[in-house]
Amino acid sequence: MSRQIKVCEVGPRDGLQNQPYQIPVQDKYAWIVLLCKAGISSLEVTSFVHPQAIPQLQDAETLVELLDSSLSHFSVLIPNQRGLERFLACENRDAIDEIAVFTAASETFNQKNIRCSIDESFEKSTKIVAAAQKLGKRVRGYLSTAFYCPYEGKIDLEQSLSILRRLFELGCDEVSVGDTIGLAQPQETKVLFARALEEFPAKQLAGHFHDTYGMALSNVYACLDLGISIFDSSVGGIGGCPYAPGASGNLATEDLVHMLDRMGMKTGIDLEQLIEASVFIESKTQSLPSKVFQALRQKKSFK
Amino acid sequence: MSRQIKVCEVGPRDGLQNQPYQIPVQDKYAWIVLLCKAGISSLEVTSFVHPQAIPQLQDAETLVELLDSSLSHFSVLIPNQRGLERFLACENRDAIDEIAVFTAASETFNQKNIRCSIDESFEKSTKIVAAAQKLGKRVRGYLSTAFYCPYEGKIDLEQSLSILRRLFELGCDEVSVGDTIGLAQPQETKVLFARALEEFPAKQLAGHFHDTYGMALSNVYACLDLGISIFDSSVGGIGGCPYAPGASGNLATEDLVHMLDRMGMKTGIDLEQLIEASVFIESKTQSLPSKVFQALRQKKSFK
Repeated sequence: MSRQIKVCEVGPRDGLQNQPYQIPVQDKYAWIVLLCKAGISSLEVTSFVHPQAIPQLQDAETLVELLDSSLSHFSVLIPNQRGLERFLACENRDAIDEIAVFTAASETFNQKNIRCSIDESFEKSTKIVAAAQKLGKRVRGYLSTAFYCPYEGKIDLEQSLSILRRLFELGCDEVSVGDTIGLAQPQETKVLFARALEEFPAKQLAGHFHDTYGMALSNVYACLDLGISIFDSSVGGIGGCPYAPGASGNLATEDLVHMLDRMGMKTGIDLEQLIEASVFIESKTQSLPSKVFQALRQKKSFK
Repeated sequence: MSRQIKVCEVGPRDGLQNQPYQIPVQDKYAWIVLLCKAGISSLEVTSFVHPQAIPQLQDAETLVELLDSSLSHFSVLIPNQRGLERFLACENRDAIDEIAVFTAASETFNQKNIRCSIDESFEKSTKIVAAAQKLGKRVRGYLSTAFYCPYEGKIDLEQSLSILRRLFELGCDEVSVGDTIGLAQPQETKVLFARALEEFPAKQLAGHFHDTYGMALSNVYACLDLGISIFDSSVGGIGGCPYAPGASGNLATEDLVHMLDRMGMKTGIDLEQLIEASVFIESKTQSLPSKVFQALRQKKSFK
């Protein structure tokens, strides 16, 4: 089962947006450089979301201007027309290889999270995708609450699949299927991804799991079994979603890379160097929940 | 795949032996009662280990005298002849349904952990098993470091299987196969258990996983797939092994029960009542690493 796995680091966007205060942009950049040095080759750096909605990411333009495109494959999330305009105004926009757009399988979650219906989210995304394609950029779609919604509970499988189809029809090159509140267990994950694979190739499907209840790696394992080879994670496990009660953490990149390493999969990421990036961001934010981070840091103190 | 799963709670023994100080025996007993009320039907309460080796469990006799056999299926670990004598001297020994004996697949780990060779551990266990059988008690064997040893590294599969066979030949009714330092990934877990199942029925094999690197539930999932239906865990995730550097925690019973619940498996355990037992022991010991405990406790504070 040994093969190449693409790890999409979402910490600088999905992780930092959930911090209680804003991290200085120089620290964000220093962290991103450490992540790139560790071998992270796919990195979502920020979101051009309204500064009042998520003040933690209000420095999106400044951050983009700092980036060196040779370091990694960089992505930014663009939620709406205003965000697109802000991105297009960046002098260094060529440093960004990929634009990400967002929707959810749950109507209520979309309303609470981005204050529009699912249909409206597609209307907004249509222009963003067209602009991205015009610039020659790759497009990533996020399908949030694909399994469970904090407001609606269990999401119907057919509903998730129909939104997934619409994201590909929209022009997405890849869709990240998200267990936003961490309630999916590996069997249901397997069912949804198996259905998705009947229509779309594995290279276009990513698994985005939250470790709220400790099941993220089990879901990754279930996906690997099916041939899925793209997974989202956040260094140290920081982050979550401010609008999803209980969503207390993304799958930690260390935990993901460690398991993949042990399974003989190739990620191109050096775990020890990754831990250095975690130590850095922990010093700027919060205690990091990653099990591997805690275990390896403890081991170092044994020496 | 829905079926009955036996959860063996090892917190009072495997969890408490790793605490920096001794918990008062009345607190241990109150905790055990809470665990039984939550539906824990298989519970290892203590070890008759030498008080100087593990002072945290020096109250083994006092604890056994307090137990009411109608509450659960109770087990005690007996490491040697002196421990057996101490157990046999307990007036309330009938409250104990099962005797557990211990060995490891790694020679070095056995030497460091119980200061004898694998062969010597079997010599010691022979008399203990005979005494247990004479008393009509069930016998559980622990096969530690079945995958990895903190001193020897990767353990040869054939070596683990040969020790497993010897434990059954010794008279064990059930053997708990342990990933003592949490390094096994689900594929290798699957390989070992699949081999074991060629020789022994699923009802005699338990999975004992440590969540040091976050892979315990992935290993449980791999085992479930094979038909394994017995898993060890520790409420809150407390414990580990004082002689295994980095072994920072048993799989948390909450995390296990939560995933099994969501998979439609039957455990007979009430998760909310289990959390009450966790809240209690946390107040007496340490911050508990269980993800489910943290998430559900947070949710309660939302209300």
